[in-house]
Amino acid sequence: MGVKHTKRAEDYSKWYNELVQRADLAEHSDVRGCMVIKPYGFAIWENMKAVIDEMFKETGHSNAYFPLFIPKSYLSKEAKHVAGFAKECAVVTHYRLINAEDGSGLVVDPKAKLEEELIVRPTSETIIWNSYRNWIQSYRDLPIKINQWANVVRWEMRTRLFLRTTEFLWQEGHTAHATSEEAVSETNEMLEVYSTFAESYMAMPVICGRKTESERFAGAEDTLCIEALMQDGKALQAGTSHFLGQNFAKAFDVKFADKDGKLDYVWATSWGVSTRLMGALIMCHSDDEGLVLPPRLAPIQVVAVPIYRNEMELESISKLMTVLGEKFKAKGVSFKFDDDDNRRPGWKFSEYETKGVPVRLAMGPRDMENGKIEVVRRDTKEKKIVEFEGVDDYVESLLADIQDALYDKALKFRNSMTVEADDFNQFKDLLSNGGFISAHWDGTAETENKIKELTQATIRCIPLDQKRAEGQCVYTGNPSKGRVLFAKAY
Amino acid sequence: MGVKHTKRAEDYSKWYNELVQRADLAEHSDVRGCMVIKPYGFAIWENMKAVIDEMFKETGHSNAYFPLFIPKSYLSKEAKHVAGFAKECAVVTHYRLINAEDGSGLVVDPKAKLEEELIVRPTSETIIWNSYRNWIQSYRDLPIKINQWANVVRWEMRTRLFLRTTEFLWQEGHTAHATSEEAVSETNEMLEVYSTFAESYMAMPVICGRKTESERFAGAEDTLCIEALMQDGKALQAGTSHFLGQNFAKAFDVKFADKDGKLDYVWATSWGVSTRLMGALIMCHSDDEGLVLPPRLAPIQVVAVPIYRNEMELESISKLMTVLGEKFKAKGVSFKFDDDDNRRPGWKFSEYETKGVPVRLAMGPRDMENGKIEVVRRDTKEKKIVEFEGVDDYVESLLADIQDALYDKALKFRNSMTVEADDFNQFKDLLSNGGFISAHWDGTAETENKIKELTQATIRCIPLDQKRAEGQCVYTGNPSKGRVLFAKAY
Repeated sequence: MGVKHTKRAEDYSKWYNELVQRADLAEHSDVRGCMVIKPYGFAIWENMKAVIDEMFKETGHSNAYFPLFIPKSYLSKEAKHVAGFAKECAVVTHYRLINAEDGSGLVVDPKAKLEEELIVRPTSETIIWNSYRNWIQSYRDLPIKINQWANVVRWEMRTRLFLRTTEFLWQEGHTAHATSEEAVSETNEMLEVYSTFAESYMAMPVICGRKTESERFAGAEDTLCIEALMQDGKALQAGTSHFLGQNFAKAFDVKFADKDGKLDYVWATSWGVSTRLMGALIMCHSDDEGLVLPPRLAPIQVVAVPIYRNEMELESISKLMTVLGEKFKAKGVSFKFDDDDNRRPGWKFSEYETKGVPVRLAMGPRDMENGKIEVVRRDTKEKKIVEFEGVDDYVESLLADIQDALYDKALKFRNSMTVEADDFNQFKDLLSNGGFISAHWDGTAETENKIKELTQATIRCIPLDQKRAEGQCVYTGNPSKGRVLFAKAY
Repeated sequence: MGVKHTKRAEDYSKWYNELVQRADLAEHSDVRGCMVIKPYGFAIWENMKAVIDEMFKETGHSNAYFPLFIPKSYLSKEAKHVAGFAKECAVVTHYRLINAEDGSGLVVDPKAKLEEELIVRPTSETIIWNSYRNWIQSYRDLPIKINQWANVVRWEMRTRLFLRTTEFLWQEGHTAHATSEEAVSETNEMLEVYSTFAESYMAMPVICGRKTESERFAGAEDTLCIEALMQDGKALQAGTSHFLGQNFAKAFDVKFADKDGKLDYVWATSWGVSTRLMGALIMCHSDDEGLVLPPRLAPIQVVAVPIYRNEMELESISKLMTVLGEKFKAKGVSFKFDDDDNRRPGWKFSEYETKGVPVRLAMGPRDMENGKIEVVRRDTKEKKIVEFEGVDDYVESLLADIQDALYDKALKFRNSMTVEADDFNQFKDLLSNGGFISAHWDGTAETENKIKELTQATIRCIPLDQKRAEGQCVYTGNPSKGRVLFAKAY
């Protein structure tokens, strides 16, 4: 408690780094750019995974697993993919170590050099479409709707825990369809899944939109995205869904025979979210005291701390808490009674506040006598003394309130930070406050790049619900058909 | 149906390879030694994972995630670990690709050479204990009971789907304790978890035992294992649990202060099971017609096939099946109604037989009229016509029967294949039939190696329930204190 933590207003980025460590979510490993996801952080990720996985299955997808390694030559098979994709990859060149002759340890066996280097997957379109070639002969084999949960590696020079790491965890969906329409509809459906997950579980409002050509995934015909706003006014891309056209089918020669026996290339989509969502979750809701977690993703939803002077008092409180625990269990509420005798209540209060546990209960001898219990909600820090009888119902509805309140607060913030700019000076002024700037754009990559160069703002997306409205580009004054969203971004 | 499949008796190994592909479980990828786990195979693995993960959590473990890459120097820090561990590893030497000057594709950027090579984890003791050093200061930080689900890579020259692949999926538990006793007890507890899983879910009887010194995990003080017997009479090690003593703590300098402030090295365990369990599951129960799955791990427990001549008949059957489906859902039984009009009933029967679906239902117009339904169990192929009314209850109890019957059959087989040998000629004779041979051994690595050299049989384990009984070594005639189990193994 004596340690002074950085506040958001002082240095948002430092606040974030400290928080990730204080809340015991993750840490840097000794391997450059790779993180260790600690048990508490991983438990949140597991909750995310479980929900998303369920949503994938409900929409007809199956999980599978493809190799970690991709032969180097595969990466160059789809021209745009290789051109656009970062070439910072981990390259496996050898397959054996031997003892150094001088006894100093292990050295790479020069005789065990691979004929073709293997790349640790940065994404799996190439290796998966190479497999799909053998899986697909006719329309009867379609659609294929597969997802994989995997680790991927992109060699990053500047890393930040969860937001940008050399190795990260993600899911990547890869689907194959007989028609363009079906693939487009899949692309939309998965964006919808992501947006529902972000809003209903992460309590994080998102804007569904389309990337401009220059921001598209390398090899995609169309990239849809969900964009969220963090508390420092920077945008964060939280998930993408790509319509890949026939690009990968052509690169890997994947054709199917339709009902009339006519051959055509298969249509593709891919879509993914990653441990980056952890960064978004943390930055969307947390405060200067620590993590704030939406109840639907919190590993511990309710914690109870006993306050006692002797063993007998602890025992009486424990009895009540055992009963309460049973009630929570029946309701599917995850509950922890922290009776660790090595730590004082004050330490525990601070610990669970740091860890973002949505509801904290405390009970002392006087509460017990009066049949009361203290209830503190993490988001507003509001404290109430309520009847112990029925506190399970009270907390259950409080958890739902907190979930809604977090969403509402984030939405209100985002709305207040989304403004229209109609000339470039205004644009720059508004941008200095952060947030989304809704402005007309002439549709050229040239203007997009120029604005980025001058302001560091990028077009986050062309909102899917964009209103068609004639206007003038905020930078060039050339004609525009609607506003797009600009922001500085993670 | 026209294709002739290899039978077990003809060529067990070929039967296995064909089956893995026929049942659509996995296939070789173009990347040497790496497999693609297909959706149906992965669904079985997911079921395994879910059960095991739940068992870990019930025994107080949390999941976390550590880096894929291990600095080369870490591997040589624990002397026995590096000496005993296979050095066939994937070595990352570079971190960037560039376009070839001649436009022929991508080449490795010679300027992007790593100062220290990174090894794709073959197992994670070293990287994890390097982290634990910073996590552990005092007895208050102990125990640490962490598990990780991960991919690992061991460069294998000869690979077989699921049984031995260069990349495989597994879980690895890594725990840290204040006392030797606690670590030993953890080692035992996790073996118990594995054995319960194997017997109660996989319906696969296992022998719990201890490895001889020469078969121990590199760096362990003691390796416990579960050993199963496949239908061809070969043994398969299905899981291991290691007591690591203070070896890794010493190698990575991990000390803790006890209640009196005295410093000591931390005690460790590690334990794991892998996608190899898929191979065991397949080989333990399946028959010449295809896969046989224990109901508790089957992705589809019950499939229903409609037999109809026209749309109207299909509709009537569908209605009944929808109702039945609801009943199965309420019971937690996974049910599929296959009304695919592109396939004939005969094709479907064969398909689900190949895929090992435990119970197959069929209903035609006559059954419907009579209020009956056909029920076929996969394991015995026994067919019954039963009342449609109440078929959900019938099937529910049938699934439990099948689960038990598979276990009983496998146990009976194993018992019939476990024999005692008292001299070396008898040993060799018996070994030619396969199975476990229970024999006295003089306890020396020399004899163990000699027997292996002469017969290919290894000591699978010293059973934990070994009876102390004076005897003479089956090979040397030297004194022995009890019988151990020999077998040829996967």
